[in-house]
Amino acid sequence: MADSISFSRGAPSADIVDIEGLKQATIRAFDQDPAGVAGYGTAVGYVPLRKYIAEKHGVPVDHVFVTNGSMQADAFLFDELVTPRDSVVVERPTYDRTLLGLTERGANVRLIGLQEDGIDVDELRAELEGGLRPSFAHVIPNFQNPGGSTLSLAKRHALLALAAEYDFLIFEDDPYVDVRFTGEPLPRMLDLDDTDERVVYASSFSKTVCPGMRVGYLVGPPELIAKIVRRATNTYISPSQIAQAIVHQFLTGDRYEAALENVKTALAERAGTLAAALRTHLPQATFVQPEGGYFLWVSLPEGDGHNCAKIAKEAADRGVQIVKGTDFLLEGGENAFRLAYSAVTADVIDEGVRRLAEAVEAARA
Amino acid sequence: MADSISFSRGAPSADIVDIEGLKQATIRAFDQDPAGVAGYGTAVGYVPLRKYIAEKHGVPVDHVFVTNGSMQADAFLFDELVTPRDSVVVERPTYDRTLLGLTERGANVRLIGLQEDGIDVDELRAELEGGLRPSFAHVIPNFQNPGGSTLSLAKRHALLALAAEYDFLIFEDDPYVDVRFTGEPLPRMLDLDDTDERVVYASSFSKTVCPGMRVGYLVGPPELIAKIVRRATNTYISPSQIAQAIVHQFLTGDRYEAALENVKTALAERAGTLAAALRTHLPQATFVQPEGGYFLWVSLPEGDGHNCAKIAKEAADRGVQIVKGTDFLLEGGENAFRLAYSAVTADVIDEGVRRLAEAVEAARA
Repeated sequence: MADSISFSRGAPSADIVDIEGLKQATIRAFDQDPAGVAGYGTAVGYVPLRKYIAEKHGVPVDHVFVTNGSMQADAFLFDELVTPRDSVVVERPTYDRTLLGLTERGANVRLIGLQEDGIDVDELRAELEGGLRPSFAHVIPNFQNPGGSTLSLAKRHALLALAAEYDFLIFEDDPYVDVRFTGEPLPRMLDLDDTDERVVYASSFSKTVCPGMRVGYLVGPPELIAKIVRRATNTYISPSQIAQAIVHQFLTGDRYEAALENVKTALAERAGTLAAALRTHLPQATFVQPEGGYFLWVSLPEGDGHNCAKIAKEAADRGVQIVKGTDFLLEGGENAFRLAYSAVTADVIDEGVRRLAEAVEAARA
Repeated sequence: MADSISFSRGAPSADIVDIEGLKQATIRAFDQDPAGVAGYGTAVGYVPLRKYIAEKHGVPVDHVFVTNGSMQADAFLFDELVTPRDSVVVERPTYDRTLLGLTERGANVRLIGLQEDGIDVDELRAELEGGLRPSFAHVIPNFQNPGGSTLSLAKRHALLALAAEYDFLIFEDDPYVDVRFTGEPLPRMLDLDDTDERVVYASSFSKTVCPGMRVGYLVGPPELIAKIVRRATNTYISPSQIAQAIVHQFLTGDRYEAALENVKTALAERAGTLAAALRTHLPQATFVQPEGGYFLWVSLPEGDGHNCAKIAKEAADRGVQIVKGTDFLLEGGENAFRLAYSAVTADVIDEGVRRLAEAVEAARA
């Protein structure tokens, strides 16, 4: 068997993590705040990092909650907001773990189509006019997982207007925003919302620092944040202070800017190489060329007998891992799969796609 | 106002944490396993630490789950085991956050008296004979929080026999075991249980390394551990790998033994000084002299008009923090309070108790 090439995991490869910078950040954390790093802290998060995040977003600190990775933030938020049979809106397709977290809590999950410029607001408006009353809409605005698309500015405004008219919260789930490698950044809905009440925003340092820290955060209305802080206190007293202190020192240190550039340069190269390889080896595939992030969502022609489960199996037989499209949907997706380029160095991408194209053919036979 | 003296928080003071040792452990963690520290890992915990814990307890690794502090372990366990109206047994008094975690999940919490040698197994047996069918019994066997008492060997055997006869699980919650400063260690119920099915064991590195890492763990039947691993995957993907890697390097490094001795020596001195100060300034108080851990549970004569809420307030007015007895019970405890000596250096303990004795007098007036 040839070497394994994984397009499955949404994680950076180790070569684009600044280990030396993290080591230096850790030493500074212990030297500058030994009692803070060693002690319990409280459930709001490591205080200097919470302050850094509040300043980044231009909000008071009581809008900010820092936790052990942004999925833990999602879990607390869902525990707070979702009661069984509540309607919630997500994109179609969307992050598989979000789907699971919502369905496990008994939510009535309504999937709204994802277009090249983000969620289909006309479809959402029609559903709302038809009586849908979601408690919130979960949207991944930048370089969507798995779709790769980015929500346009016009749609950001349109979503906020719908949220105001139909009184629901927007859960702006934005872990990839800072790994944009082309195009211009768009304003967050968090910032576009003049009321400061319609958006709860989540992000993470897994993509900009590294996943092993497990540091993510929420920014939102202080009453909601306070409820989540109480849940966190009763769940774990406080998040890892050392991990958050390392992240804080790394972000405020003099290596961060170059480290982030290095990540973006590598991701841009990998995304470009992957797109070129798909055009060469799998010309019948369609996908959105992402402006950042980790993922390409590859669709094969419908009605052409494609089955992503078979493709994934044939690919695995050739040492190539992908995630099947059906994982990101409640129904459909058989003709699609997700390719993550974050963990694949550019030199093996072409070979990976060549084998994948073989797998696609083999799966049709 | 005089300087503040806090007997309230069950945490070590910063002076007994080996910051230099932790710093060195961090450097080793990054140098020896950069990809492991920086990457996601999985919900079972950082693999080398999980292996270390399995070896410490002489069990296969699939009996072990490592998480962000032992309270997070409790939360997963309760989510798995407690359904509303289920009966669960706890000690009277017990850790306030355990009580809260169980009552919040709708458990029918049955408190069984705590004696100088641990939970009153005769009272428990009578309840079981009377029809009580708990899903589990939560027991803090060593230097109980808040009671300070340690479960005798005879009672450990008796509890296991009752668990077998009445088919319930023992949740052996043991964060303080390794900070014994006098007397002989007793075997864990986990080890005394020949079936390997009757005990789920929790412990922590908050007392032996430091709280700010947030690293705790469970050891239990592999089927139960597997269910909890699934919950953890769906909650946070993986716990902080860097925090667990630092703990692993610290535990296996050459400074750990001396660091732990230093902690135990300090705790022994603080406990002894506190007991002496109570005998001097508050001779009417009774308490169990602990053999380890962090806490003294102080009872004042009943029927003597004591009210721990008033005492706590009068003490706070004098710059002294305590936790009132009622926090550790569902009813009663007005004549009691908990003193933590873990965070108070020996030189201020006498003064703290002198003020506390004034507060006790003032609260009766």
